[in-house]
Amino acid sequence: MIDLSKIPFIKVIEGYKARFIHTSSMTLGYWEVEKGAVLPNHKHLHEQVSQVEEGEFQLTINGETKVYTKGMVAVIPPYVEHGGVALTDCKLFDIFQPVREDYKSLG
Amino acid sequence: MIDLSKIPFIKVIEGYKARFIHTSSMTLGYWEVEKGAVLPNHKHLHEQVSQVEEGEFQLTINGETKVYTKGMVAVIPPYVEHGGVALTDCKLFDIFQPVREDYKSLG
Repeated sequence: MIDLSKIPFIKVIEGYKARFIHTSSMTLGYWEVEKGAVLPNHKHLHEQVSQVEEGEFQLTINGETKVYTKGMVAVIPPYVEHGGVALTDCKLFDIFQPVREDYKSLG
Repeated sequence: MIDLSKIPFIKVIEGYKARFIHTSSMTLGYWEVEKGAVLPNHKHLHEQVSQVEEGEFQLTINGETKVYTKGMVAVIPPYVEHGGVALTDCKLFDIFQPVREDYKSLG
């Protein structure tokens, strides 16, 4: 059993910090994001699923912009450009497949 | 954008119904479980991550029994036996990797 509250936060970019769990096939990211913080457009080899747990997050996937709240799920295929901005303080939950090896070296 | 509320529930076993999202590499299951409902011990080829969103769920993984609440994460490796029982009405969130092809034919 993993107790999320025992995992230290890692600041990844300005306004974005997360707790990460790396399993054998996936990385889970439990984000806390500050209102107004910008996620620059980027892409990566991982399939990504993003969900808002609290707040409102404006996400642009492949040029299409929508505002996500709890109950909305974004599926971002590998190598598809995405970015966004937190419209409020947010809690986000991301799943990456395969593991984000680049995140293992953070913190 | 996927609106979870638009996905119909599928009853999988007695007391366990879920909304499923199948991506290219994963299946996500958003469960509603009735108090007292038993998940018989079983195993499968998929890695599984299980989280409780609401309620208390007693989960046994490879013979080790613990009570899960929000903020606790279970990582169940492929082919490891697991089962459990809902101690209260529960909302659970499961991630399976790879896709649960067997769930696609349900409902």
